[in-house]
Amino acid sequence: MNPTLALGIDIGGTNTAFGFVDRRGQITHKGTIPTKGHLSIGLYIEALCAAIEPVIKQVGHRSVVGAGVGAPNANFYTGEIAFAPNLPWEGIIPLSKLLKDALNMNVVITNDANAAAIGEMTYGAAKGLNDFFMVTLGTGVGSGIVANGKLIYGHDGFAGELGHMIAVRDGRMCGCGRKGCLETYASATGIVRTANEWLEREGVNSLLLAKKGNLTSRDIYYAANDGDALALEIFEFTAKILGQTLADAVTITSPQAIVFFGGLSFSGAFLMDPIRKYLEQNLLKIYKNKISILHSELPDSDAAILGASALAW
Amino acid sequence: MNPTLALGIDIGGTNTAFGFVDRRGQITHKGTIPTKGHLSIGLYIEALCAAIEPVIKQVGHRSVVGAGVGAPNANFYTGEIAFAPNLPWEGIIPLSKLLKDALNMNVVITNDANAAAIGEMTYGAAKGLNDFFMVTLGTGVGSGIVANGKLIYGHDGFAGELGHMIAVRDGRMCGCGRKGCLETYASATGIVRTANEWLEREGVNSLLLAKKGNLTSRDIYYAANDGDALALEIFEFTAKILGQTLADAVTITSPQAIVFFGGLSFSGAFLMDPIRKYLEQNLLKIYKNKISILHSELPDSDAAILGASALAW
Repeated sequence: MNPTLALGIDIGGTNTAFGFVDRRGQITHKGTIPTKGHLSIGLYIEALCAAIEPVIKQVGHRSVVGAGVGAPNANFYTGEIAFAPNLPWEGIIPLSKLLKDALNMNVVITNDANAAAIGEMTYGAAKGLNDFFMVTLGTGVGSGIVANGKLIYGHDGFAGELGHMIAVRDGRMCGCGRKGCLETYASATGIVRTANEWLEREGVNSLLLAKKGNLTSRDIYYAANDGDALALEIFEFTAKILGQTLADAVTITSPQAIVFFGGLSFSGAFLMDPIRKYLEQNLLKIYKNKISILHSELPDSDAAILGASALAW
Repeated sequence: MNPTLALGIDIGGTNTAFGFVDRRGQITHKGTIPTKGHLSIGLYIEALCAAIEPVIKQVGHRSVVGAGVGAPNANFYTGEIAFAPNLPWEGIIPLSKLLKDALNMNVVITNDANAAAIGEMTYGAAKGLNDFFMVTLGTGVGSGIVANGKLIYGHDGFAGELGHMIAVRDGRMCGCGRKGCLETYASATGIVRTANEWLEREGVNSLLLAKKGNLTSRDIYYAANDGDALALEIFEFTAKILGQTLADAVTITSPQAIVFFGGLSFSGAFLMDPIRKYLEQNLLKIYKNKISILHSELPDSDAAILGASALAW
């Protein structure tokens, strides 16, 4: 019997979601466990397998080709998660080996943005594209780079850190210890930093003042929706920084599309339209009018599972 | 009989060099014609073939696998040279087709930096490397990007324009019409611009003053060699700009090495040592102490021919 399902596991800071996915990208079984609250990585793996194994019994072990895992700071080559600031485990976790032993199947892991890129390429907006950027605008800015039809892992598995290109030399302090990284401006966190900085301007007038000190990226979206000039200007500024930095990245691999995913990208036209404008303004002539700005076509909640599962085939 | 030789053609602004190369990278026959001075592209092709054909007759047409051509602005996918500012032909030249008809063999073309990357990968400093940048520091800054063991052409054949990443936002005017491109600082032309700017400083004291208005990058090298403080500072500044910009490019494909080639790279330790320093200073932590800074291992005069010929195999 040929395997008909792949197991996709999406490890997030709060929850771990999994699903069994058929070759057409349909999720046949789903489940979730909390990522936090286990006393050790061993007990976490136990809890995860306890949730997964009933499904494996039901569908038959031989019908599952293997498991793909998307997780922050996961390395495709080593199978390890290393020093992930948003996960509860410290140091280096040999996740691939632990899961392989526990589930008795092949396990491939990669970081969440790479998994998203593979998901879009297999089932979503990047179907049939050989050269594209996947850019996830969430708490940080993640990316997966596809060239010549293959995901670029780089020599050490750490390729695709677009969020740590320097967008503004000597700019905002980044969690990575350097200054001016793209993600300090163009993530959900970054856009809130912009708003908080601008709300300190003298004589500022904005709906956002009511939320001062407690602002989320969603508040900025709602304010823009209500026509708030400051909120609209914040989106324009964020898009300018993104467009400028993406124009630089384009010179390396010349992609035919940039596919956006993640909380902030759902700000729709407020962000996507000016990104398109500033990208074009900043591109070297030979790249102009060639690059599509696309939005993920995978359902928000399933995208990471679909991407991870696609690794297993 | 299996072919034993590949024809490599290097089209430069002044001269066109060609050579027949065996599988070990030995050049068995060489020749050169001027690139300029022909009344049309047709007459140029005629002159080139008149120089090449006696060798083909001598070695036997069937012993030649085909021809590879490296030329500025050459596109691998289309086989065309498009709007090359340093070549005597205007508009779009279907070079691959013209040469194929004239020589009656397969012809593959690519830009000169990509040809250099393939040459280093096949015969030089990048042998066995799957992920590296080739960076040529000449009149401009060219680059060839290799990832997953393959040259990245991008979806349109124009990938690898590192020289047009914005090194300094709103910086020096570039020939491409934008401002602050890496090559306005880090090429042979760029370093001369730096020197000319700095020589206008009040109270400046430097050996370079004697050459003011007529300065070449070689003069800066000689002055640095004589311990001239300004010349040394110019190299330091140039290396800083290069190191910063390369650190950004590394986030896309995570290469294991950066291989330098071209006039300016022969400034040796004056440039290479500080590049290493500033690259490391600016790298995201996960990339630190992993990237080799290498120098081309191909003989200067033959590198382009070797690279172009390697395309043909």
